[in-house]
Order: sequence, then C-alpha cells, then structure tokens
Amino acid sequence: MDRVAVIAASMTDFGQRDGWLRDLLAEAGSACIDGGPVSPSEIEHLYVSNMAGGEFEGQGGIANLVAHDLSLLPAYTARIDQTSASGGAGVYAAWQSVASGAADMTLLIGGEKMTHRTTGEATDVIASLTHPVEYKHGVTLPSFAGLTARQYLHQYDAPRESLAHVAVKNHRNGVDNPHAQFQKTVDIETVLESPLVADPLRLYDFCPITDGAAALLLCPESVATSYTDSYATITGIGGATDTHVVHERPDPTVMNGVVSAAQQAYEMADISPDSIDMAELHDMFTILEFLQAEDLGFFEKGEAWKAAMNDITARDGDLPVNTSGGLKSKGHPLGASGVAQVYELYQQLCGTAGKRQINAQTGLACNVGGFGNCVTTTILEGRQWLMNQGSLLLDMRAER
Amino acid sequence: MDRVAVIAASMTDFGQRDGWLRDLLAEAGSACIDGGPVSPSEIEHLYVSNMAGGEFEGQGGIANLVAHDLSLLPAYTARIDQTSASGGAGVYAAWQSVASGAADMTLLIGGEKMTHRTTGEATDVIASLTHPVEYKHGVTLPSFAGLTARQYLHQYDAPRESLAHVAVKNHRNGVDNPHAQFQKTVDIETVLESPLVADPLRLYDFCPITDGAAALLLCPESVATSYTDSYATITGIGGATDTHVVHERPDPTVMNGVVSAAQQAYEMADISPDSIDMAELHDMFTILEFLQAEDLGFFEKGEAWKAAMNDITARDGDLPVNTSGGLKSKGHPLGASGVAQVYELYQQLCGTAGKRQINAQTGLACNVGGFGNCVTTTILEGRQWLMNQGSLLLDMRAER
Repeated sequence: MDRVAVIAASMTDFGQRDGWLRDLLAEAGSACIDGGPVSPSEIEHLYVSNMAGGEFEGQGGIANLVAHDLSLLPAYTARIDQTSASGGAGVYAAWQSVASGAADMTLLIGGEKMTHRTTGEATDVIASLTHPVEYKHGVTLPSFAGLTARQYLHQYDAPRESLAHVAVKNHRNGVDNPHAQFQKTVDIETVLESPLVADPLRLYDFCPITDGAAALLLCPESVATSYTDSYATITGIGGATDTHVVHERPDPTVMNGVVSAAQQAYEMADISPDSIDMAELHDMFTILEFLQAEDLGFFEKGEAWKAAMNDITARDGDLPVNTSGGLKSKGHPLGASGVAQVYELYQQLCGTAGKRQINAQTGLACNVGGFGNCVTTTILEGRQWLMNQGSLLLDMRAER
Repeated sequence: MDRVAVIAASMTDFGQRDGWLRDLLAEAGSACIDGGPVSPSEIEHLYVSNMAGGEFEGQGGIANLVAHDLSLLPAYTARIDQTSASGGAGVYAAWQSVASGAADMTLLIGGEKMTHRTTGEATDVIASLTHPVEYKHGVTLPSFAGLTARQYLHQYDAPRESLAHVAVKNHRNGVDNPHAQFQKTVDIETVLESPLVADPLRLYDFCPITDGAAALLLCPESVATSYTDSYATITGIGGATDTHVVHERPDPTVMNGVVSAAQQAYEMADISPDSIDMAELHDMFTILEFLQAEDLGFFEKGEAWKAAMNDITARDGDLPVNTSGGLKSKGHPLGASGVAQVYELYQQLCGTAGKRQINAQTGLACNVGGFGNCVTTTILEGRQWLMNQGSLLLDMRAER
C-alpha cells in the first residue's frame, strides 16, 4: 500500500492570542498552504482537531466555518475530538482519509482558544473529560499528576529534582522555538521554589494555558514526490485507550494506552524503540515525560528519571525529547498539541528546524488525552528521498 | 480493495429519555454487540458521533467514557462532530478506519441527549453552528427553512400542501417503527393548522428535539462472511460542504453539498440515481426532503413536490423515502440521526424491517449538517450474498 506523507506543516505563535478559534485555525491553515505547490482546490478533506470550542467560546460547526474561511469548498470536513489528544486523533483521521483512498490531499488543522477564560474555567472544562465519579470528588488532571508523581518518586527511588530537570530541559529547548509561548530558560531552583500546585508538583511542573493552532498537509507518498523533494512519511501510527477511571489502574505509573498505541505504531513501521532518533512527548506535567519515555520502550521502567538527570533526553543527548520545548514551554492549546508535535518532527526530519536542528531520520510523537485515558502515537521518517537522491548522485558521479 | 460491510446495527428508543448521553450510547452499543458473533475484545476502533455533549450536559471525553462502559479497552476511540451530520461523518470515519486497514472491526455509536434542556436552549446550541455573522442577526436553522420554503414554493409553483404531504407520509411510516418518537399519524389539516413557526412552515413541518442513540458494526466484507450471512455493504460514500454563510448561495433551493457528496458516492458505487431503491433523507424540516430528493438526482429540480403529492415517495411508491419515519417522526438526536439512517437501510436490505419492510437491494442515506453546510452520503447494497447463495442453490438443483 502507498504510504502517507506529510508534505507541508505550520504552526501559529502559541501563547495569549487575540481573535477567535476560527482566526487561529485559518492562520495555521493559510501558513500551511499559501505559497506552497498545492492549491486550495486540490484539498479534498479538511479535519479540524479541537476539544472544546463550543464550551470555550460557543462556536459550533468550526470545521465548516474554517473550510469557508480558507475557501476550501466543497472539501469534506469534520471535527475530531479526543480531549487533549485531539491533535493526534486528527493525525490518525487524516492518515486514514488518505490511506483509505477517500482523499488524495487532506489538510489537518488543530487548535484551541483558551486564554480568554479564567484558569479555573479552563481547568473545569478540561476536568469534564474525567470519569463522572472522579469528577464529582473534585479530581482534576493536575491532582492526578501530583498523586502519580508522588507514587513514581517513591516506587523508583527518584529525587524530586529529577522532575525539575524535565522543565529545565524543555524550557531550554523552547528558547530556540520562535513559536513557543515561553522563550526563556528556568533553573532547577526556580522550579523547586515555584508555588505548590499538587504536591509534590509545583507551578513549573505544569504546562500553561495556551491559544494556538498547527496544521499538516497529507497525501499519498506517490503524490508527494510530484509536489516536493522535502517531506516526511508516516511509517507507523496507532491509538489506544486506558481505564477511564484512573484509580482502577493497578500501577498508576504505567500508562497502558501508551504501551498499546506504541506497539501498534512500532509494528506498522516494523522498527523497535531503539530506532527512534527523537521524540515529542506529551509533557502536560513533567511526570508524564517519564511515564511515556518508559512506556514507549525508550528506557526500562523507573529509569527515565536517570536519563533526564544525565541529559540523555537533552537536545544534544542520545535521545532528544521535546526539542520543540514540549507542551511545558511551547504551550498546550489542547486540539493543536498533537498536530504541533508532528510539525516539530516534520521540521527536524526535513532539516528546517533552525536553531533547534538535530540530526534525526526517525521521530515519534506521543499525544495523550486525559491522564493517559486515550493515546495516539505517530512515527515519521524523513529525508529518505533526499538521501536516495544523494546516493543516486554519488552513483552517477562514480559512473562518470 | 476489500469493501466495507455493516454486520450489525441497533438503535435505542428515540424520544424523551432518562439518564445521560453515556447511558444512551452504551445502550445502543450493547444492543449492537450483545448476543452477536463479535466479542467486545475484537473491536479495535470505537467512534462516537456527537455534536454537543459538552454544551448540553458538560461531559467531555465521551468516546473514552463509552469505551470504558462497554469494556472495549484498549480500543482506540475518537469523537466525531459534524453538527447535525455528525452521524454521517461517523459512518465516513468508521468506513475509513476499516478501508485504510487501521481496524478490522469498528464500532460506531452516534447519540445526543437534548430534552433536559429547554427548546430555546437546544435551538441556541444548534444555532451556534451557523456563521457568526448570520448568528448575530438572530438567524436559526428554522428561520433558514422558512425562507427557503417560501422561495421553493414561489420558484416552482408548488402548493403549500405539498410540504404537508412530507409530514403526513413520514408520520405514517413512523407508526410502524417501534423506536420512533412519534408513532401516530397526522393528517394534512393538522399540519396546516398547527402553530406557525417560520412562515410558511408550521410546527408539524419540523422534527422534534430528541434523545437517542444508534450503532453500527463495520468490518471488511471478507471478514463479514465469517461472522454472518446477513449484512449490507457500503458501496459508495462521500462528503462535501456548501457555503457556511447561507445567504451567499446563488439559489437557496439548491444544496451544492448534497450534489457533490452524492456525485462521489454514485461514482464510487458505479451507479446512477435510478438504481437507488429507497432513501433515508434528512427531513429536519419538510422542505429539506424536497431539496435533497432533487439534488440527489431522484427528481428534476422543482419536481419533488409533485412526487410527494403523487405518493411516489410513499412506502409503496416507486422510490420510498424515509420508511423509518424520518427525522420528522422518528426524532432527531443530532449525533444519532446519520447512524440511524444507515440502521434503517441495514434493516431493510437485510429483510428485518418488520412491518416497514419493503423490497429493496440498494439504499441511500443523506445526512445534512447546518442548512446543507456539510453533507455525507452513503450507499448500501444488501442481500447480495444471500441472493448469490440462492442462485447457487438453484444452480445446484439444476445440475442434479
């Protein structure tokens, strides 16, 4: 079967933005197609990843509205909601639309507009995704994070500082991302002395509330080559759920949804975790970066904290994690985040990541909804075509 | 490519229901799989079609929650929102999940819980899908329907009574649908004397506000045959959008989204409109049944009203439309309706429609979001396998 390629990607500046969700989505969509080789009339499907546009600003029919704003008619449209993993679910939907033959050119735009609401209001909308029984008891995602972090530190004898290393690293990466909400470094002390939110986690262990959008253009690989030399290919993709009642999990430090989604993606790509050169993980809370790095098979269970402290996941480490700055520093506009993760992979694999550029040919994105309730994992490989071209040129030269 | 089959279908009673959206979705999902040949552990993807669960009852993460309630873990889940066409978009998503090879067994459940809100509140949530410029001027979908009905009657010299015929016919069909919200006949006079809502349309020209859910189980046709002798195959499917600003349409009596989505479905099924034996159309307002019947190519433009008055679309007519009772009498729980349309086709094509049973081998469902802003069209063919078996038996007998 023809594989699915990402031939263009964009993201807006993340942060506190003016305007409406539709404006952000249109901005990302335009940036993805304007000036590129694909004309709007060639786009057959448009998917919009968005968790709660209705709840946040009372706008329904957002996918239709954006198709109108971008003059994509009569492209088919739908909105994909998978809570904080809406972006990853959008990638999966867009992949399916191309892989099934339904569309030969699909635009995916993910976004969320949140900062016009108070932190309390936004937290409550997000908490509505938890199980009603847990919600009723006042549980929010930050409280799950606090409980799980406590358990992890205890179970694996990890120091509190290890979590702070995640924040410090991701802020350092964010400095070089011109779209990141926070482009400033923080030090260990700042993290450890920031206000307590959910013991042991403090303010700097949490991602911010963010407005923003990101977009991807997908088509069959056979079509991609006629448009561009620079694209990345989705070689593996999968999705899974874990218990919706978080307290039912036998070991709260294991996210079965991540394990299962990763398994599917690795199997499809026919590779193992050690073939991954870089990863964008869902560090909504610092503790989540450890859990995912372990459940994805990058490190043994209980070992990710050591990797963070030994700079293995730093940008110049053996396995760079969140070169984009992650949700922690880049920001987390719910429906955008999973799309922005793939945007970062695309930039890195195509060699256009600017100051953040690393040497990577295979990247993995893990997008988590709820507290691991739903997960999507996407593996991208890049520069194969350029590399082959390179070899071809060498061959040609050798023949002379 | 292997085609996609519907191997089971269910719907809850539609109407005013107790409980929450999750209860309705679980009820439909259970009815679709319980006692059937497919065990929950075989279901790889679950899609939930739902327009506004967050707005109506403050529950997010509904697809995860239902996966939990139905013990489908670790199946991948996502929620599909395409306003009133969410159900059809769910069918398209489920089709893509199977056709792309992502899943070999996909459960789709569509539903909405609305009646706990006032009619005004529900109408406002629905109106949030319109373009902000039109919304600001107080436009709601019923007002579009009134304006368009006036235009249609004028443009095609149709009598007001023709619209009433749609309501009368669909109520007559609904009498034989044990799941319909209204199982009672109405006469022309009752429709014409009911309270005025949006001139010239009256109360009985409108579908009700409804709670309910419906479900479908989909898999590759090659897999279907190992589970059941009785299934229907999706031979054509497509989706499209029209202008999101309704007043921008050159002729408001033409729904370009319907024309375009139908074209895709006919092309894929390699048939023309005259091969369709029955149709489930989106009669949210009586006028919509005329527009769709024409834009789908069943009748020339401006002729559908004559077909209604001449009983051509009646259950014993040449082209039965809305044998289920349609949205008008069956009810319209937004996210469920497009799924329930395919449920009706499945029942009719498999010969299990009870008192409503007609003789049909090919059926079409047209699900409309907004006022034609987004549309999906699905063509199902049924009983092919049974028929082939029948011929085979005859052949075998002849050979003896």
